[in-house]
Amino acid sequence: MIADTQVPDLDVSHWFNTSVPLDLPKLRGRVVFIHAFQMLCPACVSHGLPQTQRVQRLFRDTDLQVIGLHTVFEHHAAMGPDALKAFIHEYRLTFPIGVDTASQDSPIPSTMQRYGMRGTPTTIIIGRDGTLRHHRFGIEDDLLVGAWLADALAEPLPETTAPNLEGCTSDGCAIPVTTAHSMETGTP
Amino acid sequence: MIADTQVPDLDVSHWFNTSVPLDLPKLRGRVVFIHAFQMLCPACVSHGLPQTQRVQRLFRDTDLQVIGLHTVFEHHAAMGPDALKAFIHEYRLTFPIGVDTASQDSPIPSTMQRYGMRGTPTTIIIGRDGTLRHHRFGIEDDLLVGAWLADALAEPLPETTAPNLEGCTSDGCAIPVTTAHSMETGTP
Amino acid sequence: MIADTQVPDLDVSHWFNTSVPLDLPKLRGRVVFIHAFQMLCPACVSHGLPQTQRVQRLFRDTDLQVIGLHTVFEHHAAMGPDALKAFIHEYRLTFPIGVDTASQDSPIPSTMQRYGMRGTPTTIIIGRDGTLRHHRFGIEDDLLVGAWLADALAEPLPETTAPNLEGCTSDGCAIPVTTAHSMETGTP
Amino acid sequence: MIADTQVPDLDVSHWFNTSVPLDLPKLRGRVVFIHAFQMLCPACVSHGLPQTQRVQRLFRDTDLQVIGLHTVFEHHAAMGPDALKAFIHEYRLTFPIGVDTASQDSPIPSTMQRYGMRGTPTTIIIGRDGTLRHHRFGIEDDLLVGAWLADALAEPLPETTAPNLEGCTSDGCAIPVTTAHSMETGTP
Repeated sequence: MIADTQVPDLDVSHWFNTSVPLDLPKLRGRVVFIHAFQMLCPACVSHGLPQTQRVQRLFRDTDLQVIGLHTVFEHHAAMGPDALKAFIHEYRLTFPIGVDTASQDSPIPSTMQRYGMRGTPTTIIIGRDGTLRHHRFGIEDDLLVGAWLADALAEPLPETTAPNLEGCTSDGCAIPVTTAHSMETGTP
Repeated sequence: MIADTQVPDLDVSHWFNTSVPLDLPKLRGRVVFIHAFQMLCPACVSHGLPQTQRVQRLFRDTDLQVIGLHTVFEHHAAMGPDALKAFIHEYRLTFPIGVDTASQDSPIPSTMQRYGMRGTPTTIIIGRDGTLRHHRFGIEDDLLVGAWLADALAEPLPETTAPNLEGCTSDGCAIPVTTAHSMETGTP
Repeated sequence: MIADTQVPDLDVSHWFNTSVPLDLPKLRGRVVFIHAFQMLCPACVSHGLPQTQRVQRLFRDTDLQVIGLHTVFEHHAAMGPDALKAFIHEYRLTFPIGVDTASQDSPIPSTMQRYGMRGTPTTIIIGRDGTLRHHRFGIEDDLLVGAWLADALAEPLPETTAPNLEGCTSDGCAIPVTTAHSMETGTP
Repeated sequence: MIADTQVPDLDVSHWFNTSVPLDLPKLRGRVVFIHAFQMLCPACVSHGLPQTQRVQRLFRDTDLQVIGLHTVFEHHAAMGPDALKAFIHEYRLTFPIGVDTASQDSPIPSTMQRYGMRGTPTTIIIGRDGTLRHHRFGIEDDLLVGAWLADALAEPLPETTAPNLEGCTSDGCAIPVTTAHSMETGTP
C-alpha cells in the first residue's frame, strides 16, 4: 500500500523504448527522474530532451531510472503516438518514454492532472522512498539537476520500505545496487 | 513560357503564413531563398529554421522572398498539414511555408523530385532571372548564406525579363524596389 | 596537524577577490571547489571559468568555497599578476583567485607541482575532512560537477575533525552551516 | 596620393602573422576586413575573433584581405606585444594582426583615434577603391557580415584606380584576381 505522502503513479497508455511497462510502485527503492515534455514544445526539444539524454548517459552507472513522459495538453492531433514514434526515432531518444493517458473531459492528460503540472518542460525527481523530491516547471540548469540527482541517489533506502525489484528498463532488469543489503534481509 | 534554364516551379498543396499562393514565375525579378525542411528533422529544427528566420528578419529591407518548403519524404503520417500547422505555431515561424505535394507512387514529394533534392535541410537560392544560383543539401554557414544572398540581390534584372509584380507575402504586396525602373518602361 | 591523506595546501603568492588569504587547513569542515586555469588558456576562458562562475552562483546557499587558482606554466611574462588583475576585471570574476607561486627552477608553479596537475583546466574538489575527492585535467560536464559537489556537501563532518571557522571570502566570513550545532553548544 | 574620401591608413607598431607590413594604400584594389579587438575584451574573444577566423577561412578563395588590429585603450601593461604574441599562439589565430601604435598623450592608440572608434570589437570593411564601406562598434551577425563582404567583393575596381600589387600576407603574395588585366597592361 502506498502512503499518502507517496507521489501519484504514472497513468500511461503506451510505452516506447521499454518492453515492460514502468510504474512507480515497482520502482520504489530507486531514484526516478521524469522529464515531462511535448514533442512540439521548443524548450523541450532544444533543452529538456538533450539534458535528459545526458542524464541517461552520465548516470548510467547508478540505479537511476530515467523516464520521459509525453504530456500532450495542446495540438493533440499533431502529437499522437505515431508522431511521437517518428520523433523518438529521428531524435535518437533511448530512455523509456510513456504517453500520458488522455483525459475524457479535459485537454490535460491524466498524469499531468494528478501532479498538477503547469506545462512543459517539467522536471520531477522521486526519491528511493517514493516521495517527491523535486517538481518544477521550466528549464533547469545542469549543475542543479546533477546536484539534485546526487542528493537523491545518496539517500539510503528506509528500512521499512520493501524495495521492488521489478524495475526493468530497455537496458535489462538490474538489481538495484544500493538496496542489496535490505533485499537480503527482506521484510515480513 | 519558362526557358529550360529556369528552375522547376514549386508544387505546393497547401500554404501557411500567406494569403496568396506563391509560385516562382510570379516571383521572377526577385531573389528567392527556399529552405526545404521536415518538422521532425533535427538539423532543420536546430539550425536550418532558426537560420531562415534570421534571413527573413535581417534581409527584410530587401526584396528577397523567403519560402519554407515542407518536403516530407518519411514519417508521412506524423507530418501532415495539421501537425505542421501546430509546429509553425509553436516555433513562431512567420515566413510563407508551402507543403510539397505528395507523390502518388513515391514517398518523395513532387517538388523534391523536380529539384532532385537529396534530403533535408536543403538550401536553394534562385536569382532574379529565375535561374538556380545555389542548391545544396546540409547545414550551411551563416557567413556563406549572407554572401550568396548579397550576390544574388546585387545582380540586376535582365532587361529582357518581364518582372512579375504579384509576389505577395504575408507582409503585403510590395512593388519590388530593384525593378521599379524596368517596370515603368515595361517590355514589348 | 594534517594527516598524510590530506591534500597539499595551496602555495599562493597573491590573492584577488578576498581580503583574507585562504588556505586549506583553515577551510577544513567545508567543501572546496578549485578551478586551476590560465588566463590565456582557451578552454578555461570558454568553458572552465564560466562554469566556475555558475558554481559560485548556484551553490551560494551552501558552505561551498569556490577558489580559482592561476597556475601559469607557460607564457609567464604575459600572465603576471597585473595582467591577471585586468583579466579578472574584464571577465567580471567574483570568486577568490590565488596566483600559484612561481617555482625557482621550473616553469611549473608550486601548487601545480604539489598536486601533480597535468595542465589547465584542472578541477579539484576537496571534502569536508580535507581529503581529495576529485582531481582531473580537462573540461567537465555540468551535470557531473553538480553531482560531485552535492555528494561532497552531503558528507557529514567527521566528529574528530575540528572545523575551522575562519573561512573568509570576499562575501564576508560566514559561519559554516553544517557546523552550526557544535557552535551552538560551545557558547553560553 | 589618397583623396579625402579615402580612409586613414593604419598606424601599426608591430605585425604578427605576416612577414611584410600591410598598409591600406598598398591594398587598394582589394577589399579589406578589419577586426579591431583587445585580447582581454570578452566579446572579442567569444565572438569577434572566432568570426574573423571564419571569415578568413570561408573567403579564402577571394582576394579579401583580413586584418586583426590590436587597439589597446585600457590595461596597457597587460596587453603588450609579448602578451599578444602568447594570445595569438594559444588561440591559433592565423590572419595578419597589427598592434595599433600607442599614443604619447592619450590612452587611445593612433589608428583608433584616426577612425574615431568607440571601443572593441569594431568591424571595418574597406572597398576596392579605398573608401569606407562599413564601420561599427559591437557584435555583428554572421549573415550581415557575409552580405557586406559579398557586396564589397562584387564591386568592380574603378578604372582610374591604380591597384597596388604588393598586398602580401602570411599566405604569400598573390596577384589580386580581379585586377589581373590592368596589372598586365600597367607594367612595363
